[in-house]
Amino acid sequence: MQTFSLQPIGIVHSCFKEKFAIPRQPLLAPASKGVIELYAPFDKPEAIEGLESVSHIWLTFIFHKTLSNTPPNDTYNTNEKYLRVRPPRLGGNKKIGVFASRATHRPNPIGQSLVKIDKIEKGKIHISGLDLLDQTPILDIKPYVPYADICQDATNEIADAPPKAIEVSFAANTLHTAQSQQTEENQLIPLLEQTLAQDPKPAYQAVDTERSYGTQIYNFEIKWRYLTASHIQVTDILPLS
Amino acid sequence: MQTFSLQPIGIVHSCFKEKFAIPRQPLLAPASKGVIELYAPFDKPEAIEGLESVSHIWLTFIFHKTLSNTPPNDTYNTNEKYLRVRPPRLGGNKKIGVFASRATHRPNPIGQSLVKIDKIEKGKIHISGLDLLDQTPILDIKPYVPYADICQDATNEIADAPPKAIEVSFAANTLHTAQSQQTEENQLIPLLEQTLAQDPKPAYQAVDTERSYGTQIYNFEIKWRYLTASHIQVTDILPLS
Repeated sequence: MQTFSLQPIGIVHSCFKEKFAIPRQPLLAPASKGVIELYAPFDKPEAIEGLESVSHIWLTFIFHKTLSNTPPNDTYNTNEKYLRVRPPRLGGNKKIGVFASRATHRPNPIGQSLVKIDKIEKGKIHISGLDLLDQTPILDIKPYVPYADICQDATNEIADAPPKAIEVSFAANTLHTAQSQQTEENQLIPLLEQTLAQDPKPAYQAVDTERSYGTQIYNFEIKWRYLTASHIQVTDILPLS
Repeated sequence: MQTFSLQPIGIVHSCFKEKFAIPRQPLLAPASKGVIELYAPFDKPEAIEGLESVSHIWLTFIFHKTLSNTPPNDTYNTNEKYLRVRPPRLGGNKKIGVFASRATHRPNPIGQSLVKIDKIEKGKIHISGLDLLDQTPILDIKPYVPYADICQDATNEIADAPPKAIEVSFAANTLHTAQSQQTEENQLIPLLEQTLAQDPKPAYQAVDTERSYGTQIYNFEIKWRYLTASHIQVTDILPLS
């Protein structure tokens, strides 16, 4: 069996520092931001010449966290237990074939995400609307081509609409913190609203209004709980040193 | 620098047996057909369970012919000569950055194509509208998700519309051959019409009405010439043994 060796052309610095709560498709949280840092020699202006005429790009990347959690010698998952996955969209308790899903646990740990270009600098592409974990290795960048990539005839009965956004509110103390910590760069309030509205909890898990959830976004430990099954309240925004 | 080793999960059997004249984006020639043959253990029904609810899929693949034509020890193109490419859309004589283009010569030889599912069998996915060369190694299959992949806001000034289709006609003798050789499976006449309408000749090349072009499609050697700059005539359809 042929093997192809690929090396990253860059790395993503993302607002999302942990997997938990990352939106399950890109563009669902337009306030999310990141920077692609291109490695030499791809940091030269020549490599991205013309990209200023393009609004969105496809990123091909490695699910590095999934990969690092996979047992050694098992990265090419020939084990039959990997043939089916439990996508969150089906409640997380029904299995479907890995190739009918975009789950992160895949035979080859390759992801594909559409993101918006915000700004281009030497060796850096600032992006938004991303669903990538911090430190994700990037294998390739391709321009989005609307006439080729917009397929109006396409149907997908498994994922036919974005997840229904749920309500997000801030406990009084956290609203104050969010307002004081928000910058034009981190857009903290809309970012938390858009991210948590995706209902990060596994769908098969019953809502427990006593339970506290948390993740790291930018340099903040964010905590929240469910007031109801369709209403999340941010309970803590703790700046990390 | 980290290296990721990936192995194909399958291979494409495509109507396109040579690179020349393959449409430059998928879905431009809906009559083009192919079959993805999944390798064990991915040929088990579990791996594609649910795919019957999906109309289109993304294929992540290796540009194997480009790769095999690349000098040894040069597969990871750190050579600066690869930072810019000449996309056919810009006439083939203007260079842009490789990451602003979907050219096949890339730092990592990864392609991404959207194709339509026609039929699913055990270990096989019949597809159409493809732009893949025969024997292309497939790394991954992901469902198209319309709400995530259709980005109505996206703009791309480099490739803002499909190439203008040119006229295709059949010389009298070839029309007879095409009719006699056409099957429901190969859809030979629309396939040749749709493929050649993309004007396969490099755009920077002047039209030479004396010159004969050719490529292999299915088991046929197809030859054509230009009657005018915007009119191709199929001159020979030679069944190969």
